[in-house]
Amino acid sequence: MLMKSRIKSIFDKVEKDIDSIFIYNGTKPHLDMTFFYVTGLERGAFERCGIVLYPDGSGEMIISSLEEVAAKQSDIPITVFENEVEKCNWIKEKLSSTNRIGVNSKELTQKGYKEIKNLTNAKLVDISESISKARKVKDQKEIKIMKEACKLASEAAEEIGDYIEPGIKEFEIGANLSYLMKKRGAAGDAFKPKIASGPNSAEPHYTGGRRELKKGDFILMDFGALYRQYNSDITRTYFVGDITEKQRRMYNVVFKANKTALEMIEEGIKANKVHKSAEKVINNSEFKGKFIHSLGHSIGLSCHDGSGFSPSSNFKLEEGMILTVEPGVYIQGYGGVRIEDNILVTKNGCELLTHASKDLKII
Amino acid sequence: MLMKSRIKSIFDKVEKDIDSIFIYNGTKPHLDMTFFYVTGLERGAFERCGIVLYPDGSGEMIISSLEEVAAKQSDIPITVFENEVEKCNWIKEKLSSTNRIGVNSKELTQKGYKEIKNLTNAKLVDISESISKARKVKDQKEIKIMKEACKLASEAAEEIGDYIEPGIKEFEIGANLSYLMKKRGAAGDAFKPKIASGPNSAEPHYTGGRRELKKGDFILMDFGALYRQYNSDITRTYFVGDITEKQRRMYNVVFKANKTALEMIEEGIKANKVHKSAEKVINNSEFKGKFIHSLGHSIGLSCHDGSGFSPSSNFKLEEGMILTVEPGVYIQGYGGVRIEDNILVTKNGCELLTHASKDLKII
Repeated sequence: MLMKSRIKSIFDKVEKDIDSIFIYNGTKPHLDMTFFYVTGLERGAFERCGIVLYPDGSGEMIISSLEEVAAKQSDIPITVFENEVEKCNWIKEKLSSTNRIGVNSKELTQKGYKEIKNLTNAKLVDISESISKARKVKDQKEIKIMKEACKLASEAAEEIGDYIEPGIKEFEIGANLSYLMKKRGAAGDAFKPKIASGPNSAEPHYTGGRRELKKGDFILMDFGALYRQYNSDITRTYFVGDITEKQRRMYNVVFKANKTALEMIEEGIKANKVHKSAEKVINNSEFKGKFIHSLGHSIGLSCHDGSGFSPSSNFKLEEGMILTVEPGVYIQGYGGVRIEDNILVTKNGCELLTHASKDLKII
Repeated sequence: MLMKSRIKSIFDKVEKDIDSIFIYNGTKPHLDMTFFYVTGLERGAFERCGIVLYPDGSGEMIISSLEEVAAKQSDIPITVFENEVEKCNWIKEKLSSTNRIGVNSKELTQKGYKEIKNLTNAKLVDISESISKARKVKDQKEIKIMKEACKLASEAAEEIGDYIEPGIKEFEIGANLSYLMKKRGAAGDAFKPKIASGPNSAEPHYTGGRRELKKGDFILMDFGALYRQYNSDITRTYFVGDITEKQRRMYNVVFKANKTALEMIEEGIKANKVHKSAEKVINNSEFKGKFIHSLGHSIGLSCHDGSGFSPSSNFKLEEGMILTVEPGVYIQGYGGVRIEDNILVTKNGCELLTHASKDLKII
């Protein structure tokens, strides 16, 4: 029933006239996470597999024999193909009586698109924005999984303090964070942990290298858990052994920006207003102009699961959306602070999902 | 120079007439690993960034400001865009004087394709097969990195024996394997470790759950290291505490199939012959028909980095190709054995890259 409602919610959001939707995976990593959204499947690769969806919320899957056991976890009928010809014949038949078929251009490869095109006379219609809209608003099952994914990351953020000391290398912190999440049941990292110490923390996308931590360093850790196909994404910035007044002021400004944004979030608010509220806190401080990225992004089956809090995003927040809130201040050659939470938008506010402490921490 | 030769090797393999190539990333995970192949960049996300390549081996990148520091690790000239309009203008200009532009349909999203199409009057030509061919043959730098990625996985395969005992859960073995690779310097897992114990090992794509190991179990571990953008992929199957004669026979047949395939590999041999040689060993045993997948796949910047050893793959092996060799026997409800190596094709044979012992191991 839940999966039916997900499929229907996609059709509800499609403004164009379509008869069915075809979701088609490429080879890893070019899978369409919508396949997992509409099936609820939590394991299996499903490379080069596909699913046809209908407006009544039903669907039919075509899968390779290697995925048969995994696919049976879903209620959706399956057909097993042994080779590409069998698969193509199935697709051809299923798409034969339709005139307009929705496809997800954002996660479908151009090769996959051409393959579909060759198997049908129907017009292929890009419905990626509708899929994105549907996936942005999480249902109860998704919220439960996301809470667990956030818990796994939050607990690791708390426990990693035991491992941080001068001499440890950035990548060793990353290894420990991953282990702390996995031993609690995470399937993996949501993404390569970004572990940036000292001046490296001034580079928002630094992915962690071999630098050894020194007393007085910033240690910025941006990581997340993959859990039952869903991702969490948290950042905490700690200080190693000592802190300067400037570092403290940086931390406090970012913390204030984070809190200001969280207080602003509720159903109906425009996303860019939330970005601007955090940006304003930073731009009213001595760190004016040092917040150089968007405040956050929608998160779920993909780490970047749709739009987010940017200066230009003018959609209205809806109950059930889950987004990151991650203000930061970056000073080249010196260091950076970022504090990132994942939050669930509610009717009258937001629920914090990443409970790791944000109090200034000197380890 | 190395990057020039990679770019040239792609053009060399394109049989169609093209003036330039445009590689264009989507949002993670929809990145084109060719971007990293031709730039040699080892960190950074480069979402929605692109690169134009020319037949003389030169290139020009358009990247977002967040990636500027990372991008400077490459010699290729960069232009930084602050917003989508700036990026589109750049692409428009660079693609304006060309008639035919090569694109990588296998790793380009349909959305990205449409964006390019809207920015140029040139014809877009799918050169994904040529890119795949170029990437399949590794150069010296790639071989060096792949050897290290295989070493990280092999060492973890050896050391994991210390953690295996009745009572430990599948996902805990996965957590430890990842940690063992990462503490040695892996950037992450090549893919979610597939840890299958007891009857679960009969499902080739089982990804590891909460089952507790029992005495007499198969424990099949399929995992790999991500290292400097490259992937390794190893499988070892051990036995917990005890073994039956049937399990021993299964292991020995798979081991023999693995050895038979390795002995057959050398430059000039057709890929499907290698698959068939391993399959024959299994089909001549009591486990006839229980080898239910292809023998292996090309591996590198992607885990499945092109074609591989399947019954239908009739390309000839070339020196410098790196592939997996992974025969297996699977008995539903009972268990499975798979032994997987990564090998480098050489003039007169192959070089084994995954050195973890394959002797039957009862832990």
